[in-house]
Amino acid sequence: MVELESLFKLHYGLCILGSTKDEAVNGCIANTIFQVTPEPPMIAVSLNTESLTNEYILKSGTFTVSILSEQAPMPMIGKFGFRSGRDINKFENVNYRTGRTGGPIVLDDAVAFIEAQVKQRVDILTHTLFIAQIVACETMNDEAVPMTYAYYRDVKHGRTPRSAATYIKTK
Amino acid sequence: MVELESLFKLHYGLCILGSTKDEAVNGCIANTIFQVTPEPPMIAVSLNTESLTNEYILKSGTFTVSILSEQAPMPMIGKFGFRSGRDINKFENVNYRTGRTGGPIVLDDAVAFIEAQVKQRVDILTHTLFIAQIVACETMNDEAVPMTYAYYRDVKHGRTPRSAATYIKTK
Repeated sequence: MVELESLFKLHYGLCILGSTKDEAVNGCIANTIFQVTPEPPMIAVSLNTESLTNEYILKSGTFTVSILSEQAPMPMIGKFGFRSGRDINKFENVNYRTGRTGGPIVLDDAVAFIEAQVKQRVDILTHTLFIAQIVACETMNDEAVPMTYAYYRDVKHGRTPRSAATYIKTK
Repeated sequence: MVELESLFKLHYGLCILGSTKDEAVNGCIANTIFQVTPEPPMIAVSLNTESLTNEYILKSGTFTVSILSEQAPMPMIGKFGFRSGRDINKFENVNYRTGRTGGPIVLDDAVAFIEAQVKQRVDILTHTLFIAQIVACETMNDEAVPMTYAYYRDVKHGRTPRSAATYIKTK
């Protein structure tokens, strides 16, 4: 039996994945970010091929990850998760700084950030898996609790766009 | 700055990754399992090249994931995480059944399972990333809470072997 809702039992964190292109910045919500090797430390992320952030990562070869806390406001998550950077400037009114890779690091409601340089790209149907070496990472708030995807769904009653790697059609 | 301990802010779930070879079964602890595409549903896992489970997955082309609950006992996690299937039969005294792929599905202290067929393999230094299509998945216990890696470390005071994708040398 393939009962896809059981995949909700897999834990993820909620992050803003950012990148840059010609001094513009863009980002989107991503939860499928995980470490793949310990030394040198590499991470992977799966991202829809049609997202503008994907285009920026292809162009710059780098991305940033801002790991969100449980306090991250739903309107901000909604903007990064459901709107496109082709229509709006998502970072307008967001407190962020530019990292060493040129990508955006969210300063409010983030517990830590990672900056990474892409080493390998794997095409998987509708998504691209970027495998990247960490070039910077730092804790910004050691008191706040990073938000799990389960917390986002069950406590915050957050939804998931169809384009997401973990989108599951529920009854 | 590369402050690797900030990577602990990324959330993961704790799972037993299993596979089979010539009717033998083996498994190990893995937390780096995540969905990469929604339709058809595919998952990826990063696994040390030297682990016996890696050898079994290469041979069978399939793997199972048993997602552990917060109640999973530490001795069981220790056995699957720190011992090698080359030395002991890890599934001795473990309540499990054989899935449709022939791999082991842990029945006690697991909230859900996934069975998957490998479609792509990516070598990343010390680890192999297996990208696989889900052929079965089911919730076994909808009441129990799946264990996060943070819960394993902070509440259960669990350790991580050096061979793990998320091993970080702490001070």
